[in-house]
Amino acid sequence: MTDATAYEPTGRTVPTRAPQRASYDRGLVHALLDEAYVCHLGFVRDGAPVVLPTLYARIGESLYIHGSTGSRPLRSAGGEADPGLPVCLTITHVDGLVLARSAFHHSINYRSVVVHGVARQVTDADERSKALDALVDHVVPGRSADSRPASAKELAATAVLRLDLEEVSAKVREGGPNDDPEDLSLPHWSGVVPVSVQRGVPVAADDLDPSVALPAYLRTR
Amino acid sequence: MTDATAYEPTGRTVPTRAPQRASYDRGLVHALLDEAYVCHLGFVRDGAPVVLPTLYARIGESLYIHGSTGSRPLRSAGGEADPGLPVCLTITHVDGLVLARSAFHHSINYRSVVVHGVARQVTDADERSKALDALVDHVVPGRSADSRPASAKELAATAVLRLDLEEVSAKVREGGPNDDPEDLSLPHWSGVVPVSVQRGVPVAADDLDPSVALPAYLRTR
Repeated sequence: MTDATAYEPTGRTVPTRAPQRASYDRGLVHALLDEAYVCHLGFVRDGAPVVLPTLYARIGESLYIHGSTGSRPLRSAGGEADPGLPVCLTITHVDGLVLARSAFHHSINYRSVVVHGVARQVTDADERSKALDALVDHVVPGRSADSRPASAKELAATAVLRLDLEEVSAKVREGGPNDDPEDLSLPHWSGVVPVSVQRGVPVAADDLDPSVALPAYLRTR
Repeated sequence: MTDATAYEPTGRTVPTRAPQRASYDRGLVHALLDEAYVCHLGFVRDGAPVVLPTLYARIGESLYIHGSTGSRPLRSAGGEADPGLPVCLTITHVDGLVLARSAFHHSINYRSVVVHGVARQVTDADERSKALDALVDHVVPGRSADSRPASAKELAATAVLRLDLEEVSAKVREGGPNDDPEDLSLPHWSGVVPVSVQRGVPVAADDLDPSVALPAYLRTR
């Protein structure tokens, strides 16, 4: 039975350290996944781990990644009859640098999501199309409707993989330093340096026709 | 023979896609590693990939990571007689969102480093101490000298792993969109939305003695 509000913890989604920071809440996991767009995708090649950055998008309880049909991880996922590619997909938001009085208690405020599962090729044309639109719109909402759709040739060159959200956990560290009581009177400044990601003013392509205006969905400031 | 200026490419550090974006230049790799401080560390557990965010620091041609001696990946690395833990350590800087006229040519400007190798426990007290200082100073330069050093008990609870920089590649995508010539006259805005990471104004801990001033190394604005 599927819990509507939380993912079921498993042996590999319950951390050995700081389990109080783990969460299985679907709403939190979805929000953290939707705020990021570059993940670090891990898979095993020739018995060794490989971790590569790649874009992803979420539709409901599935994540989609894409790439050239010639790329190694996507090729490994094979076709419909294939068992798929075991992966671990991780995203991390860094929110602050936590400076404690003791070197030992220095930390980072972060919000991360780790997804374990098997990525499988998507072959259904409609699902592929929705996934590719989602990949564009996840980075810049509204953009897929304002760009030339993929041609048949481009679609044929693009592999789309789906990873269902089943074995998932979030982990969040927030707040100030957790110094030991006997360290509180030490003369070292202590607190948090906030860290955030900013989007700057869009820079038009050199060859952009000057009559093409910046679209509303990019005018955020 | 070791090349003083570049890492030797290997089968797994030559990408199948966009090889023109790959670099083996030591200076570039060092700069990219020094600019980040959170990596995504991949390893294999029970045959499946695991990717976790963690801090790291570089000293010369070695990276150091640390954690509780009770954490799973660090425990797996075992002691001195152990063969070590095969890992892939990846860092990624996102620099911009590349909006092309065609959905297909949308991209991300990024700078990434992928390190393959075997992480081994560091047992030498002096090397451990230097690595732990580097982990603090990598995030906030100058901080290790302005905090309470680790106690014997804290040191005993901390595992330090070293990953030597031998099988390493960087990958960089920069510049504007690469639209097909026949798409250049389409009426879609095209260009780059810059993305950057900012550090904000430090926030003192609630229990900080008000007489403790913000140190010079945190006064960046």
